[in-house]
Amino acid sequence: MPLDSFSIIESTLREGEQFSTAAFTTAQKQEIAGLLDDFGVEMIEMTSPCASPQSAADIRIVVDMGLKARILTHIRCNRADAHLALETGAQGIDIVIGTSPQLMQHSHGRNINQIIDLAADVLTFIREQAPDVILRFSTEDSFRSRESDLLRVYLAIADLGLVQRLGVADTVGVATPAQVSAIVHQLVRLTGLDVEFHGHNDSGCAIANACAALEAGATHIDTTILGIGERNGITPLGGLLARLYTLDRRYVTKYNLRLLPQLDQLVADRCGIAIPFSNYITGSSAFIHKAGIHAKAVLADPTTYEIIQPADFGLTREIAIGHRLTGWNAVRDRALSLGLQLDDAALKAITQTIKQQADAQPLALHEIDSLLHSAAVQL
Amino acid sequence: MPLDSFSIIESTLREGEQFSTAAFTTAQKQEIAGLLDDFGVEMIEMTSPCASPQSAADIRIVVDMGLKARILTHIRCNRADAHLALETGAQGIDIVIGTSPQLMQHSHGRNINQIIDLAADVLTFIREQAPDVILRFSTEDSFRSRESDLLRVYLAIADLGLVQRLGVADTVGVATPAQVSAIVHQLVRLTGLDVEFHGHNDSGCAIANACAALEAGATHIDTTILGIGERNGITPLGGLLARLYTLDRRYVTKYNLRLLPQLDQLVADRCGIAIPFSNYITGSSAFIHKAGIHAKAVLADPTTYEIIQPADFGLTREIAIGHRLTGWNAVRDRALSLGLQLDDAALKAITQTIKQQADAQPLALHEIDSLLHSAAVQL
Repeated sequence: MPLDSFSIIESTLREGEQFSTAAFTTAQKQEIAGLLDDFGVEMIEMTSPCASPQSAADIRIVVDMGLKARILTHIRCNRADAHLALETGAQGIDIVIGTSPQLMQHSHGRNINQIIDLAADVLTFIREQAPDVILRFSTEDSFRSRESDLLRVYLAIADLGLVQRLGVADTVGVATPAQVSAIVHQLVRLTGLDVEFHGHNDSGCAIANACAALEAGATHIDTTILGIGERNGITPLGGLLARLYTLDRRYVTKYNLRLLPQLDQLVADRCGIAIPFSNYITGSSAFIHKAGIHAKAVLADPTTYEIIQPADFGLTREIAIGHRLTGWNAVRDRALSLGLQLDDAALKAITQTIKQQADAQPLALHEIDSLLHSAAVQL
Repeated sequence: MPLDSFSIIESTLREGEQFSTAAFTTAQKQEIAGLLDDFGVEMIEMTSPCASPQSAADIRIVVDMGLKARILTHIRCNRADAHLALETGAQGIDIVIGTSPQLMQHSHGRNINQIIDLAADVLTFIREQAPDVILRFSTEDSFRSRESDLLRVYLAIADLGLVQRLGVADTVGVATPAQVSAIVHQLVRLTGLDVEFHGHNDSGCAIANACAALEAGATHIDTTILGIGERNGITPLGGLLARLYTLDRRYVTKYNLRLLPQLDQLVADRCGIAIPFSNYITGSSAFIHKAGIHAKAVLADPTTYEIIQPADFGLTREIAIGHRLTGWNAVRDRALSLGLQLDDAALKAITQTIKQQADAQPLALHEIDSLLHSAAVQL
């Protein structure tokens, strides 16, 4: 894919509000939107104005911040929702309607013909009122929808000439990269419109699926900070960055990467959750090297075991040495950093001592330093 | 892939020990191995006996537990490590050596010809001593290795006729599903040996890559509980299960799924970490439904927004209603569960009240119940 051909639709203020402990105040929304804008996301999606009175008011407030990012809102496919969305001043309106058998039966009760007619009516209504608003039409639960149903709906909507963007949504987290690639490629080829991918992470493929979408020609990817959303959430902003960075660092240099730790911490704090230990880039262990063979190689050249440079995100690596998996090269590095010149035999002996002691309990750094200083005195 | 054609190599006691805060005692290793065996993993991989004296002793202790799972250990490619591994009584020995330019330069300093000669020597030595031990040979950092180097090494080793299994390792978390698929397919086709995939998760594709490997014919997948390992870890056991379950629930019914929450909690406790809020299946939010349209549909039929049945893992779902995204169908369900018959107009009015109040602060369930009881009295 071309290096700067995609945009992030950051949905922490919409999908993210559907996370169990998320309940952002107006001030918090402004804080999150402002930092996302500093980071450089292209679009910020906000909760439907139909959700509550403050939800509607907050869209106007964030629009009035005058950010570089376009402010979108996200509504069901009906005129009442559309009317409220138009009143918010949002620069884009994202419309969604379920197309899987499950959602057609239990969410809105309409069949495919009725969905097409309804969408045409709502989109025409919006376009008449707001010729310049960025309009997106998405199916919901796209990957449990019949392929023929999806194509009927998308092709009918595309031919109306009213929307800039079509959305594909893995609402339940079931899609495979190959399935995402196939439908995105078909929409790009048949309609020429922008294509957006929204993927839930119930079965751990939201990042792989987002990248499959981009490789197939998708132009927009939905993310949330830390991946928060319904159930266990969607493609996390940091995880998408990590993946794109490993494919080609230049994909992500348009963003202010050093703000990622602050973004993750901000949303964790506002939701009362901890950043997962295993979080991409900002997790507590992301740049800790432990096993002796890893430590040895990383000390010689960090790229041996690091595909992402922590400094690009304002972070640092750590070499852990006070444990039973430690190696003498890492111990030597510690000795040198203390200004101690010990020969290899001495360093290997100390390493064995560390391993034996660590079999009972890991050693703190000052305990290792004591061992090293003692050995240096004896020389 | 055939439904029961794969095995899990559970590496919490090897890769998992490389996680920053992991330092398992002998008793903890027995506890974890025992529960993994009850769960039904086919193989359990343990830290190299070269790591420390207790590491060597613990392998023997876990072997002597007489579990159904085969006990493997994991060593560098040299005779000294092999000698120690043979003394442990492990039923399998996993050998690894780096083949990427980065690791050839900074890890062991050998070229491809030397790697082939060394591996042939070590594997022959082991096979002479232990005709029945399960032998695996793996490259390390396979996805930054030259493809021609990989094939030279794998094909030379396969032709020795000494190993049952070849390992492919995404050591730095850089592989894409397409790359995994290509190399696994080639090894299966050219050698006919079992193929194992080990994938790090630095850029969020460890689960997708593991499934790509299985679809290409891999027979063994490495996991750890919660994904713990070097840096942010590898394919998590629960995440792999979640993905396989969504592809076909019958892939995972050979395991005792209801033990997964206990396994995740056990390892979290032993490492002093929290289960991530977003963890697959066992995360705090995995089965919480919040937005009104989700709640409405899930109440009618849980499969509308659940691709995994929580009951299969001994878990339950939750419908959250005290927030601004709530809907009147979920409020009606709560009223009915309290034995209150309220008409639609009353329920919709209460829902609007909840939304307005939740704009200031989410409501506790007892506050919603009070609203419902008050309305019932007024009727």
